[in-house]
Amino acid sequence: MQGVDPAWLPDEVFRPIGTRRTLIRGAGPLVDTVHGEVAAACARFGGRVERDAAPGPYDLVLEATGTGPSEAFVRERAGGRTTVTASGPSGLLYGLFHVVRLGEDAFRGALPREVHSPALALRMLDHWDNVAVHPVMGQVERGYAGGSLFWADGRARRDLGRVRAYARLLAACGVNAVAVNNVNVHAAEARLLTDRIGDVAELAAVFRAYAIRTHLSVTFAAPLVLGGLDTADPLDAGVRQWWARTTAEVYAAIPDFGGYVVKADSEGQPGPFAYGRTHADGANMLAGALAPFGGTVHWRAFVYDHRQDWRDRSTDRARAAYDHFVPLDGRFADNAVLQVKHGPMDFQVREPVSPLIGAMPATRLAVEVQATQEYTGQQRHVCWLGPMWSEVLRFPAKAGVPVGELARGGLVAVSNAGDDPFWTGHPLAQANLYTFGRLAWRPDADPRALLDEWIRLTFPHAPARLADGLRAVLDGSWRTYEKYTAPLGVGFMVQPGHHYGPSVDGYEYSPWGTYHFADRDGVGVDRSRATGTGYAGQYGKPWAEVYESPETCPDELLLFFHHVPYGHVLHSGKTVIQHIYDTHFEGVEEVVEARRVWAGLAGLVDPARYARVAQRLEEQVRSAREWRDQVNSYFFRKSGVPDARGRRIH
Amino acid sequence: MQGVDPAWLPDEVFRPIGTRRTLIRGAGPLVDTVHGEVAAACARFGGRVERDAAPGPYDLVLEATGTGPSEAFVRERAGGRTTVTASGPSGLLYGLFHVVRLGEDAFRGALPREVHSPALALRMLDHWDNVAVHPVMGQVERGYAGGSLFWADGRARRDLGRVRAYARLLAACGVNAVAVNNVNVHAAEARLLTDRIGDVAELAAVFRAYAIRTHLSVTFAAPLVLGGLDTADPLDAGVRQWWARTTAEVYAAIPDFGGYVVKADSEGQPGPFAYGRTHADGANMLAGALAPFGGTVHWRAFVYDHRQDWRDRSTDRARAAYDHFVPLDGRFADNAVLQVKHGPMDFQVREPVSPLIGAMPATRLAVEVQATQEYTGQQRHVCWLGPMWSEVLRFPAKAGVPVGELARGGLVAVSNAGDDPFWTGHPLAQANLYTFGRLAWRPDADPRALLDEWIRLTFPHAPARLADGLRAVLDGSWRTYEKYTAPLGVGFMVQPGHHYGPSVDGYEYSPWGTYHFADRDGVGVDRSRATGTGYAGQYGKPWAEVYESPETCPDELLLFFHHVPYGHVLHSGKTVIQHIYDTHFEGVEEVVEARRVWAGLAGLVDPARYARVAQRLEEQVRSAREWRDQVNSYFFRKSGVPDARGRRIH
Repeated sequence: MQGVDPAWLPDEVFRPIGTRRTLIRGAGPLVDTVHGEVAAACARFGGRVERDAAPGPYDLVLEATGTGPSEAFVRERAGGRTTVTASGPSGLLYGLFHVVRLGEDAFRGALPREVHSPALALRMLDHWDNVAVHPVMGQVERGYAGGSLFWADGRARRDLGRVRAYARLLAACGVNAVAVNNVNVHAAEARLLTDRIGDVAELAAVFRAYAIRTHLSVTFAAPLVLGGLDTADPLDAGVRQWWARTTAEVYAAIPDFGGYVVKADSEGQPGPFAYGRTHADGANMLAGALAPFGGTVHWRAFVYDHRQDWRDRSTDRARAAYDHFVPLDGRFADNAVLQVKHGPMDFQVREPVSPLIGAMPATRLAVEVQATQEYTGQQRHVCWLGPMWSEVLRFPAKAGVPVGELARGGLVAVSNAGDDPFWTGHPLAQANLYTFGRLAWRPDADPRALLDEWIRLTFPHAPARLADGLRAVLDGSWRTYEKYTAPLGVGFMVQPGHHYGPSVDGYEYSPWGTYHFADRDGVGVDRSRATGTGYAGQYGKPWAEVYESPETCPDELLLFFHHVPYGHVLHSGKTVIQHIYDTHFEGVEEVVEARRVWAGLAGLVDPARYARVAQRLEEQVRSAREWRDQVNSYFFRKSGVPDARGRRIH
Repeated sequence: MQGVDPAWLPDEVFRPIGTRRTLIRGAGPLVDTVHGEVAAACARFGGRVERDAAPGPYDLVLEATGTGPSEAFVRERAGGRTTVTASGPSGLLYGLFHVVRLGEDAFRGALPREVHSPALALRMLDHWDNVAVHPVMGQVERGYAGGSLFWADGRARRDLGRVRAYARLLAACGVNAVAVNNVNVHAAEARLLTDRIGDVAELAAVFRAYAIRTHLSVTFAAPLVLGGLDTADPLDAGVRQWWARTTAEVYAAIPDFGGYVVKADSEGQPGPFAYGRTHADGANMLAGALAPFGGTVHWRAFVYDHRQDWRDRSTDRARAAYDHFVPLDGRFADNAVLQVKHGPMDFQVREPVSPLIGAMPATRLAVEVQATQEYTGQQRHVCWLGPMWSEVLRFPAKAGVPVGELARGGLVAVSNAGDDPFWTGHPLAQANLYTFGRLAWRPDADPRALLDEWIRLTFPHAPARLADGLRAVLDGSWRTYEKYTAPLGVGFMVQPGHHYGPSVDGYEYSPWGTYHFADRDGVGVDRSRATGTGYAGQYGKPWAEVYESPETCPDELLLFFHHVPYGHVLHSGKTVIQHIYDTHFEGVEEVVEARRVWAGLAGLVDPARYARVAQRLEEQVRSAREWRDQVNSYFFRKSGVPDARGRRIH
């Protein structure tokens, strides 16, 4: 698309297909999409594509044997022919992109027969996009990549070419669902459900061509604000009828509509508590309205007291999701999915895995991660989140079963994309979007292999020096970010409101439940059962025991679970205070090194991308130094302990 | 005026005049204003007023003997007749309000002949009002009393009745100048100078009837943004011609226009530095344009580096105004006034008097105070600033001469009024506006006498219990506010941005030059010559010596001038840390007591006013507790010193 970065689908990655002879078998719109992709490649590179007709020979056969919903495909190569077979058309689409990823390897020698199917049925991006630009939050809440891809001038964009290009990128990494508006549903956005459903249908038509279902965030108060009822009580017959009727109209406009996303009783949003009902009551009412049409309600578990008194040390926000929802296990309808943030707080650079995951065996849970880098540098900093997400997904939360298997409801990311020419503001943040989709397909994948995949696609024929440079800049960037920002599991040392840049006490005396309790003797939150908030006890075995004691708690989570003296010696052998100093100095050095590496890639990257990244690395260096100096000064002023290496602390 | 609080001019205060026989002599619009006031009072209370005609007898004779600019008047009472004589009509207007203040006392027994004339020729209110509502700052920057009195829907209000009522209130307390727009001049407001001058003229016509001249804040970049020139260099001939021509057009529209107010090279506003010129060059250019018409330029001295590095302890924002302007002494034109904030920082609850005052003997200085309570509770807290302003004005800054005499250019306040029905949001904040005007007239007045005056006018015939209650709530409120907020001269422990509520480290690692340097051992800024920033050395005798040493520095400014250990013993005999604890507990107790006192006045105050104040006192109690707990917790966590009285610190 003109003026827009091709991201991981530059024309060049279609050359192996586009120079060959392909036969496509099957029927329906998605098979047409596959044909369109191959035909465009052939037009560009001189190959040939046929549909259904017999006479060969062919280098590649793509065949959908039916029209079912399966997303799986089988690929093999024998006798000089590569075949991809799927029982459903979406599987064929994924098979095509599989061949794209293989590149020339798809057409060399023999390839054993492999069945590919997604580990998670739902691989979803939530867009926190507002139709009307919000006076404080802007058009995309917590968005760092310009305006909305979907909405302009108060309605769906007239030119949906960009949405189509986006859908194509998402399909190529395996995403199959999008929610097109902010979970904080304001007045203009509420109406997407009813009189503005036509706008949503326009978007859904574009996504449908790439096997992506469209979902909508709705307000629990819709019967009041849209329906003119005097209640939104989920057990009220009139309310249920309103939702049933409204949902039927949604499906009349969008027959493959995915369902609703709901943030209820959370940070001021309305919910069932107002009527003395449970969250299961609320979710099940919507599930009931959606069930006849095959839709799903995604009910967010992000419920906590955001008007906490900082003086009250008995309340612990980290406990909230578990305390609210575990008693409701087994009470959610089959087509209700409880959408749980991966950690107990809010997308900090380091959190333990939420104890809710694994604690509700009779409930379909989806795990939510945040691709938009609200707390991880806001796409001004390089911070590739693949390793963090992989750690979460591989974490054996319950009886050795990893999160990636426990998340039966799927994996959801808050999108980091906007109308920025590079999609994600920071060009290297595209790697987060790509990695997310691929991890949702296969949660046990090695994230470094996915990074290599992203590099091969985004920078075709990259010389080793470029690929090595990209790996050097990206691979460790999450741990680097952690180093110069939040030590040992402490979070929220950010500027209040916009969350960019350091403010060690910014949330310390706030109503948000986000404290570190640093004093002149020590720092951290005691969440043990024995002497603290009891949060550690929400985990099953072995984690409840592991986290209970500072002796067994992993270093990187120590201050999340324990309040310890600055002189406490970590498993690393360092004291807490020296760890704070050292990591902050190291973090900045690593960013400076990333800037140096990038500078060395100048001739190997197109000038626009090079310049954008270089400019953001300047800001990252500046910001990392600010983090280092503020955090180090804060803890030096409090602890009085000098740096063992005598470096300058202000 | 219907629906608007009468403030200190309720009808009742005109009863003594309105029940009597008055003769008015003199000519011109201001004498008409005087006549209109007396006539309205007589219409209400049954008295009689005549103009010029002879046949008596009269109880009151108000005579303007000429049409000169003098604001003085002479009053006396003999032979059962009270007379006010003025050589100019504005003097007569002030004489009328003097009689109003005297009440029945104006007509009892004999009154000796007294000459009343203002100590300061300029008594001005600056309004930080925007024509276009600013997305962050709102319509009135740092305004806490609703929208603008002057501007609505992008232009001067259609109904100027409210402006007239405001002008009348100002005249009654002695104000004779207003600037009608924000010193931060945005795009829409810039045009008031040129094609929108008609809007200003409409306001000026209303103010003129009450002897108030209208001033305009202008942008230094006007020749660029309005004139289409390619420079705003103050020494450029084309620029000078543009200002001369533009100013002539201003005077064609407003013959008695007061002049320009300029914030240049300050917090992002343009100024002469861009052209390598001095502030004298900039001010004199505008003074030159204004001189032919008798106008004045008010050039603000609020120039400092607002992008300071907090790590840099050698730069001191407190020094900035002195460092920038003292070298320019004697170089400003006669009709240029350098407008200096009363303290070196920015309207904190406690600052030393600016060392600039007294240090520029060859320059006309105006002193600027802030009636709008940006840092003193934002009109949600009771904080009567009379005592603070009086301390400033009586401070013997140079060779025993008080600030009130050194401020030859006048006294200026940032207004606290808006379109709120009570004018000032908090009804009791009216006392600040009134006290300001009266102190500008007579800087050595006893502020408590002015408070009594305000009570007598605002609550006519108040029973002693009400007057005592009002005094109890207001009199000590500034010191109470100081107690629960900023100890010992430390400032800026406020939430960044909006400046309401506590954030002890909110400005500690910021670029604004606003630090307290608290660590585990001590707190405060060393501004001594011997070991600090040298700021103390900017003062003349004896203050440079007094402030230089912690031994002689007044307790209330100790942390402004010195960094001391928490155990440092104050002149009061308390340690610094115990002082912090004690004042914060006391401050809250005093607010609780104010609330109790106000509750006791319920039957004595009209219900609307009672309810508004009661509601704000609730918020003040809540906020004061938050201040107490955050400040005490912060310093307890840092110092580790327990409260000697064992009170709860979180």
